[in-house]
Amino acid sequence: MKMAILGTGDVGKTLGSALIQQGHAVMMGSRTADNESAVGWAAERGERASQGTFADAAASAEVILNCSAGMHSLSILAGIDPADLSGKVLIDVANPLDFSNGFPPRLSICNDDSLGEQIQRAHPDARVVKAFNTMANPIMTAPNKLAGEHQLLVCGNDSDAKAVVKEIALSFGWQENQWFDLGGIEQARGTEMYLALWVRLYGKLQTPMFNIAVTRE
Amino acid sequence: MKMAILGTGDVGKTLGSALIQQGHAVMMGSRTADNESAVGWAAERGERASQGTFADAAASAEVILNCSAGMHSLSILAGIDPADLSGKVLIDVANPLDFSNGFPPRLSICNDDSLGEQIQRAHPDARVVKAFNTMANPIMTAPNKLAGEHQLLVCGNDSDAKAVVKEIALSFGWQENQWFDLGGIEQARGTEMYLALWVRLYGKLQTPMFNIAVTRE
Repeated sequence: MKMAILGTGDVGKTLGSALIQQGHAVMMGSRTADNESAVGWAAERGERASQGTFADAAASAEVILNCSAGMHSLSILAGIDPADLSGKVLIDVANPLDFSNGFPPRLSICNDDSLGEQIQRAHPDARVVKAFNTMANPIMTAPNKLAGEHQLLVCGNDSDAKAVVKEIALSFGWQENQWFDLGGIEQARGTEMYLALWVRLYGKLQTPMFNIAVTRE
Repeated sequence: MKMAILGTGDVGKTLGSALIQQGHAVMMGSRTADNESAVGWAAERGERASQGTFADAAASAEVILNCSAGMHSLSILAGIDPADLSGKVLIDVANPLDFSNGFPPRLSICNDDSLGEQIQRAHPDARVVKAFNTMANPIMTAPNKLAGEHQLLVCGNDSDAKAVVKEIALSFGWQENQWFDLGGIEQARGTEMYLALWVRLYGKLQTPMFNIAVTRE
């Protein structure tokens, strides 16, 4: 499939590279065409990788992955022609982390709203799926790096869109029983607010190589 | 030891009963002496169980467990003579859950503060340990009810106080490797904000009988 990655950070590069490896064509979008980081990434990844503006990337793709910093995601998406988002699967990997007062970050949106919901409300014709935002990027595309059970928490209003995301997750090595669908996009409040714990676990463990498992009876 | 339970709900009853079973003396405190629920609980639990006002309970105890509804915890603690909190281990089990708009609740305190921190600031001479707040009460006192790995997330500024809490946890069946000390009381922001995910996991699973495990490489 044709995929767009919005953002040129580690999350975008890791997901983009894994999607290329799975045979997809991936355009990495940034504020300006010829962003150095995106050009370098595309050059290393071969002919199925390309780069352009956020708008170029979204226009080219069937599936769009928001891998931008959460504080900027809404403005980035607002700069894209709505027609280029309409009907498309929009995987929201971002978290509204505000590092302006250092580590640990606070959330710029929480409690009564979430970034995932705000994106869905701003782009009602996009099929937003919140996914992969509860773990560090090396785990998103290589879940078997962790030794025990753990899960991929997802939510979104469109079940067909979630099925597309699930197929991508399975291609990365996630197992059927690791897929944890919380329900509609309003559940993003839960997965984003968990970040307040995630950053503290990270601070304590001194490694981002962890994820949570929901353990039952 | 002499313990006080502040609150007469399921959390307080479960913890109080487990502490009685471990040989401690437990006074359950409520707004009024002779609270029906507390009187009934104490009558069933034998001679080591008693009940009284919040102030009575705190005055009698070496270790105080805040098992009140989080929205009321600060006012309840404010009604206790500071001398009866000073130097004591105060286990804060509460979460600032606001159900006034139904389920799922929002948090009445979050992001830039936490209930645990507010309690510690309001009672600087108490030795506050945030613990047991990330799971349903049947799991607090019987961790082996869950089939896989899972952890008890704790935080607080006083390591001796945390050692007292750990001893209590171990008496309930928690294992050394399930004890996860996140650091100072400011880490309560993480464990309380996780509740936004907890309530949604509960809504999805339709049972409170779960907890999370932190899975590593």
